[in-house]
Amino acid sequence: MQVRRGTGLDDLVPRVLQRNSRALGRAISILEDGGTGQRELIRRVYGETGKARVIGITGPPGAGKSTLVDRLARHLRQREETVGILAVDPTSPFTGGALLGDRIRMSSLYTDPGVFIRSMATRGAMGGLARASRDAVDLLDAAGFDWVLVETVGVGQDEVDVVRTVDTVVVVTVPGLGDDIQAIKAGILEIADVFVVNKADRDGVEKTAKDLQMMLSIGEHGDWLPPILRTVAARDEGVDKLLSEIGRHRDYMQTSGEIDRRRRSHLRLRVETILKERVVAAADRVLGVDREVERGHERKVDPYRVADRLFAGVLEDAREEAREEIELEAEDGPAGPTEERMA
Amino acid sequence: MQVRRGTGLDDLVPRVLQRNSRALGRAISILEDGGTGQRELIRRVYGETGKARVIGITGPPGAGKSTLVDRLARHLRQREETVGILAVDPTSPFTGGALLGDRIRMSSLYTDPGVFIRSMATRGAMGGLARASRDAVDLLDAAGFDWVLVETVGVGQDEVDVVRTVDTVVVVTVPGLGDDIQAIKAGILEIADVFVVNKADRDGVEKTAKDLQMMLSIGEHGDWLPPILRTVAARDEGVDKLLSEIGRHRDYMQTSGEIDRRRRSHLRLRVETILKERVVAAADRVLGVDREVERGHERKVDPYRVADRLFAGVLEDAREEAREEIELEAEDGPAGPTEERMA
Repeated sequence: MQVRRGTGLDDLVPRVLQRNSRALGRAISILEDGGTGQRELIRRVYGETGKARVIGITGPPGAGKSTLVDRLARHLRQREETVGILAVDPTSPFTGGALLGDRIRMSSLYTDPGVFIRSMATRGAMGGLARASRDAVDLLDAAGFDWVLVETVGVGQDEVDVVRTVDTVVVVTVPGLGDDIQAIKAGILEIADVFVVNKADRDGVEKTAKDLQMMLSIGEHGDWLPPILRTVAARDEGVDKLLSEIGRHRDYMQTSGEIDRRRRSHLRLRVETILKERVVAAADRVLGVDREVERGHERKVDPYRVADRLFAGVLEDAREEAREEIELEAEDGPAGPTEERMA
Repeated sequence: MQVRRGTGLDDLVPRVLQRNSRALGRAISILEDGGTGQRELIRRVYGETGKARVIGITGPPGAGKSTLVDRLARHLRQREETVGILAVDPTSPFTGGALLGDRIRMSSLYTDPGVFIRSMATRGAMGGLARASRDAVDLLDAAGFDWVLVETVGVGQDEVDVVRTVDTVVVVTVPGLGDDIQAIKAGILEIADVFVVNKADRDGVEKTAKDLQMMLSIGEHGDWLPPILRTVAARDEGVDKLLSEIGRHRDYMQTSGEIDRRRRSHLRLRVETILKERVVAAADRVLGVDREVERGHERKVDPYRVADRLFAGVLEDAREEAREEIELEAEDGPAGPTEERMA
């Protein structure tokens, strides 16, 4: 088993690093599945990451994000830069997978070898999509794409998690959805680096831009004041300007050192999430998380004591291990472990 | 210090359990501050929790959630039931604290001793609001309120976390925000138990209800089919029906055993979050999380190895502790620790 998996990745990783589309597709499926294959894959490509420009494009459904992403990709291709696109689909049980269908209908980019497009949907456990799409960004980055565009609908926990991990966040809205600006405000507006009012040929564009302007003037922000741009993605208007503002944000991030600060903080969140998985797995093995949670459910103990007891159990298990080792050494003498190793 | 804090809670907790408004206000401030006071407070009241009916009311801004919550509270007061209300305010830097202001203008419930209203806003660390508002639900529950109504704007990670911890989720929308239904869909529609189309005297109510109906008919759901209700909260229309549907959901939850399943799963998430805080703190003490994250940032190791190394460090620290204890015993003989204890 071990050998076969190893051989699979030995074959797959070099093709991923050559940006082979089929290999990339297979690799992302491995990332979606999680488990040891996923971890081993990230381990092997991680050293090659950190070069791509990672842009998040988010906003409410109907804002025209897919069209905008397609236009951005075309402009970048004209500059002979390569583009990886991840369309992160929240896939409520109500809509499952509409995103990719729409995209296939509209995009001729699929046949361009300098472009890779993949739709990722929620499967299984909560938080799994955020983890998998973060891993997929690493993969496309390592594969050498100059740009990675991550498109997500700006609602829901997973999507906010996804968009928190990019270098530049573009928030797209459209005129006439007055309340939508409010609706996306809470989770997303704080982390917007660039605002786009798309479908700017529609009535109400002035009001939408003014509303955003007002919110920005009230809010606090650092040295970077998010610009508010107008685009008509369907007619390719304003896309050049959007790209140049994305570039300007990149320059700001690098000269100010903000890019390292942001990437460190993203990495820390990611590491903390993995740490949580490790400690929960260990607590499960030692005491059983559900069993202890049951005592909390019965109000015998409060949630903090449940957690403290689980953590103490994990540490005590490690201590017990050390004691047993010492005891074994004392009983068998120094030859003991060697014999055991030979058995 | 220890003594003073203890005395403070000794005085505070009994008054909380008597539903004294000032004590409740002070106690929630302690929960918002976090730290040892917060944990000790939850420890002391947790045994009294589990009796209140906890209802979440969520939806986009402008849907009329506050008015609906006020109406629900009035109806419950007419039945002589007590009501605790938590208005969880995302407080983007753009809007800070508007929610409570609106509520004060419209509500005469503030003078009713059978009602407690509190607005909670994001402060400090991400995830802090979800933790604090969950704690506050416990507090109001322990204080003996028959109902706890948690009102949140249905966007953003924190708010989704908050609404995931209630027994019954009411999702409120309004006619004419066609795209808003889509916008709230991703994170919230899956967990809705009851839909309300508020401002149902407006044009477009049929379409909104039909859209929801269609989404429900496509989606998967268990034995409970979320009803779609129409209300005009400002004129108190449909609020009775909403209350009876909330009651019907409660009955379903209890007869099906779903309420225990849901509460167990909420508690497990909560315990896992506390466990994460514990292991991160321990890893920080032993190796320094930022120092190890820096090695990941420099691409010397991948995020999984960073986490593995931190976790291994925590466990090794516990083992080392056990070894030192044994060594100390061996050196000093069994009398050693006793002497030490006497010193």
